[in-house]
Amino acid sequence: MEKIKRSERLGAMTRILMDTPNRIHTLGEFCELFGAAKSTISEDIDLVSSSFSRFDLGRIETVAGAAGGVRYRAIPSPAKIRRVLNDLSEKLAEPGRMLPGGFLYTSDVSADSGIAQAMGEILAAQYYDRQPHFVLTMETKGIPIALMTARMLDVPLVIARRDSRAYEGSAVKINYIAGGGNDRIETMALARRAVSPGQRALIIDDFMKGGGTLQGMVDMMKEFLAEVVGVGVMISTAEPAVKRIEGVKSLLTLEGFDKKTGRAIIHPDKSYL
Amino acid sequence: MEKIKRSERLGAMTRILMDTPNRIHTLGEFCELFGAAKSTISEDIDLVSSSFSRFDLGRIETVAGAAGGVRYRAIPSPAKIRRVLNDLSEKLAEPGRMLPGGFLYTSDVSADSGIAQAMGEILAAQYYDRQPHFVLTMETKGIPIALMTARMLDVPLVIARRDSRAYEGSAVKINYIAGGGNDRIETMALARRAVSPGQRALIIDDFMKGGGTLQGMVDMMKEFLAEVVGVGVMISTAEPAVKRIEGVKSLLTLEGFDKKTGRAIIHPDKSYL
Repeated sequence: MEKIKRSERLGAMTRILMDTPNRIHTLGEFCELFGAAKSTISEDIDLVSSSFSRFDLGRIETVAGAAGGVRYRAIPSPAKIRRVLNDLSEKLAEPGRMLPGGFLYTSDVSADSGIAQAMGEILAAQYYDRQPHFVLTMETKGIPIALMTARMLDVPLVIARRDSRAYEGSAVKINYIAGGGNDRIETMALARRAVSPGQRALIIDDFMKGGGTLQGMVDMMKEFLAEVVGVGVMISTAEPAVKRIEGVKSLLTLEGFDKKTGRAIIHPDKSYL
Repeated sequence: MEKIKRSERLGAMTRILMDTPNRIHTLGEFCELFGAAKSTISEDIDLVSSSFSRFDLGRIETVAGAAGGVRYRAIPSPAKIRRVLNDLSEKLAEPGRMLPGGFLYTSDVSADSGIAQAMGEILAAQYYDRQPHFVLTMETKGIPIALMTARMLDVPLVIARRDSRAYEGSAVKINYIAGGGNDRIETMALARRAVSPGQRALIIDDFMKGGGTLQGMVDMMKEFLAEVVGVGVMISTAEPAVKRIEGVKSLLTLEGFDKKTGRAIIHPDKSYL
């Protein structure tokens, strides 16, 4: 094979690491691919790593030990998080988003793949140390954000349904209290084979008002003897102040709507200010 | 600012391009970021581009003209597509996936972010030239694949629902014929504001049996005066051979199940062989 120059390796190496976030690649893997010595690959990694830090592009981390190697984590800096969340708050405060019943139209935002990716990066960064085995969400609007969070953590996404479906096999069904105020009883179903006992679950959803759906997901995990290691949402409403669930990390807080303009009053959660 | 070396630029440039697939970045943007001349940045791009081609990592393309610049497209080679689809066929032919009623359990596969990403890359590659304005899918299982396709195309994802919900505002509701054989009438709803007249839609879903749901999405687009420029699915069943919709591109074909072992008989669509 023709000798591969450093300048050719760096782009390819970045591409391979970014394609598999949070997954450890051994140095040997790159040595073989590029026909280079470990010391050379190690220098390459340092170069990519330092340019990532310099331009706030996430981290290329070296992991020591027998199962060691190098991995990419898209951990955004506090400054970048603030910028992303401020931009998103502005977008959600655009006129025309208030719907009858005091709802906020967010479907275009939560299904925007770039926004879902950015949310996933911020949410995942807070749970790397909890090492979840999977991300759990409830259909439908939370799926894009939960999927991107799962991608950043390199774990599967598990989707709870409103109904069990024939093409999902045997399922566990629970009832839970949904909705703020009027306390509707809803049903949630999850395929029996989707979760194993003892696994660690990270629960992600797009929106929390009363917290009933999130608490439902926590209860569902009890049925599977799985441990919930975190609960994160994109938007939480300021009211009701007391939720059905505690310890939820929210990226944005929706205070309500401006009565004159109909615009949403929304801002990054105080933990990001 | 301290001078930035080429070896530092290449990783950062790759990261920035990969973060925004199919989006054109001007050379000026990189000149400013790295404090380098256009000719230098142009050489950098050539280096990344040639290493991407060499290792089958997609394309870094230079786009000429006034709105020109450079973009990343994750176009996989025919050899890579075959490898991905063969691996996926093997996974779906694992024992234990046949469910009562002759359904195939695919939820873990369609919600795997790595698989969804790979499917999105293959699907998007076939529709760049049709320049869709958005990707349309129907909840729930198709969402991960549709989201990743949308991400690769740099367009929004639009999700049709079984029911219109208060938090989506006014919606268009249609009835469509779902299910192979027993012809159930189902309802599909889409937020009025999600699509504008004249837009080009790419329809993506995870599974096609009779094609009723896909035809429903085509009918929905007629209500919005939008043009359907393509329809793609992950898996299509061999039976029924005649579908309610024509021209669907499928990645895999499910022939049925082995009566002895209960394993799925599934393979890449013949267009990929």
